[in-house]
Amino acid sequence: MKKFINAPENVVAEALAGMAAAHPDLIRVHTDPDFITRADAPVRGKVALLSGGGSGHEPMHGGFVGRGMLDAACPGAVFTSPTPDQMLAATRAVDGGAGVLHIVKNYTGDVLNFEMAADLAKEEGLDVAAVVIDDDVAVQDSLYTAGRRGVGATILAEKICGGAAEAGADLASVAALCREVNGAARSMGVALSPCTVPHAGKPSFTLGEGEMEYGIGIHGEPGRKRIPIEPADRVAEMLMEPILADLPFRQGDKVLLFVNGLGGTPLVELYILYRKAAEIARSHGLTVARSLVGPYMTSLEMAGTSITLLRLTDDMIRHWDAPVVTPALRWGA
Amino acid sequence: MKKFINAPENVVAEALAGMAAAHPDLIRVHTDPDFITRADAPVRGKVALLSGGGSGHEPMHGGFVGRGMLDAACPGAVFTSPTPDQMLAATRAVDGGAGVLHIVKNYTGDVLNFEMAADLAKEEGLDVAAVVIDDDVAVQDSLYTAGRRGVGATILAEKICGGAAEAGADLASVAALCREVNGAARSMGVALSPCTVPHAGKPSFTLGEGEMEYGIGIHGEPGRKRIPIEPADRVAEMLMEPILADLPFRQGDKVLLFVNGLGGTPLVELYILYRKAAEIARSHGLTVARSLVGPYMTSLEMAGTSITLLRLTDDMIRHWDAPVVTPALRWGA
Repeated sequence: MKKFINAPENVVAEALAGMAAAHPDLIRVHTDPDFITRADAPVRGKVALLSGGGSGHEPMHGGFVGRGMLDAACPGAVFTSPTPDQMLAATRAVDGGAGVLHIVKNYTGDVLNFEMAADLAKEEGLDVAAVVIDDDVAVQDSLYTAGRRGVGATILAEKICGGAAEAGADLASVAALCREVNGAARSMGVALSPCTVPHAGKPSFTLGEGEMEYGIGIHGEPGRKRIPIEPADRVAEMLMEPILADLPFRQGDKVLLFVNGLGGTPLVELYILYRKAAEIARSHGLTVARSLVGPYMTSLEMAGTSITLLRLTDDMIRHWDAPVVTPALRWGA
Repeated sequence: MKKFINAPENVVAEALAGMAAAHPDLIRVHTDPDFITRADAPVRGKVALLSGGGSGHEPMHGGFVGRGMLDAACPGAVFTSPTPDQMLAATRAVDGGAGVLHIVKNYTGDVLNFEMAADLAKEEGLDVAAVVIDDDVAVQDSLYTAGRRGVGATILAEKICGGAAEAGADLASVAALCREVNGAARSMGVALSPCTVPHAGKPSFTLGEGEMEYGIGIHGEPGRKRIPIEPADRVAEMLMEPILADLPFRQGDKVLLFVNGLGGTPLVELYILYRKAAEIARSHGLTVARSLVGPYMTSLEMAGTSITLLRLTDDMIRHWDAPVVTPALRWGA
């Protein structure tokens, strides 16, 4: 294992300290329990957005905390769900009197812990809603998940709902919009290499020199099948086909095309994939109205990619375009 | 070689097509010869900034084209200098009547080709100035370079000079500021793994399981020495010490601390390094006034990092903070 770490047990705490040092204008890092809030939290009268999950997927979620996106993020240990006490403390810290939305990726541990945190917060009189994201079309059930996994749509929902919350939408409306984004988004990924969780010290799985894992999960969960590696254009087709088949993406629809890097794949390859994926979308009569390309939801140093396609409403476009000021996503302000 | 590509000879052209498809609001991709301009180039009356270099370092430089940063970038083949005809065509395309500044990383091929392009442009009556960036303290001469290599300071110079050009500074002033940034910036890098140039099909060098290359160049050029891998905090010290020793960074100085990922190193590790590097800067009496953390100057999928420290003037801070709207760096507008 070759990593820039000191000790596996200190990875998350030291990375959080680094984030705090690098972005004092944007975020605050709280410890014991660990969570990140935007620097000006709580924002009075605004619905607060909270997400979280295992570490190792950076910049998701801590990199998306800030004005126009998340109010807080709870980082678990690497590839491990955060605990209910983290989520409860973060919920309390960001509640500005208009309620808190929990945006939860569909992994069983995350879902259970967020449910418990929401119950505890409600007992304290806080107004909490939760939306579970499950956009991954690769497999129905998986190693850590009942139902479909939550992947790239999470980031799109965090941005779009963050815009809506900033514009003054109430908790029920922001939650409804989050469900709408999840319902209109589909994703799938592929890996060319595994990654190594610091605590484990060895790769989470093995792939032969000529193989790829088609339908990979972001923790290295098995996908649909292990197959010989294909040229980039064929990989883009193999990801776009099941995505397009799963939702009525109709001629004339506006879409957001998100080509994500899983960590170890260079940007130059992501753009090669984007080129073909956009071409496929256009050939289905879709208008690619917005794009996102880069390593936004990673699996440590895994070589791989995932594609997310979101069918956009005008409302979603407006909230997507709205200002955002976070460590990893920033525009318009 | 496991990569999302179609054919090695098409990597750059297909990636450029992907960039054009993903960012039509920000950039235009020109072909034959290949270069990228901001969508609204040429900007009348504004000094234009042009950079370029081998591909494989994305987002540098094409990802930094847009309002407030570069007017154009010329991508060469992977790890290969762009040609004078690319640079000349790009110079012509972005000249808005106030002259063009070439920002050149110190690699012999880049320097020679930019010199030839500048001479040709001047013969056509264009006003061209050039600044060579040479901030890497690792080694004096190197595989592809006489003198010190140009690395992370290039991005800082592009942003700061882009802000100055946008604010109406003339060519001589922008060039002077670029030289000032280069003179006040020092960098050094370390690699944990090599990378594979698509055309070569095999890693550019080999490193033992427990080894790191201290002082690595961004094309895999040898550094100072090959040594056993050290904990992150010691790596941060080993990079910061020669940087701090090379310039009179004085107590009370404001600095920008840039922890760059070379491609295959997860963000979580970069923040661990940032934490320690910031601590070292503070212990020298420096005020870390601005930061940048992420994979901005990469070497394909190389695992590694580089640290750049820039001694800031108030002018530099003002231009750093100014709006920038590019695919990879975006804020304030």
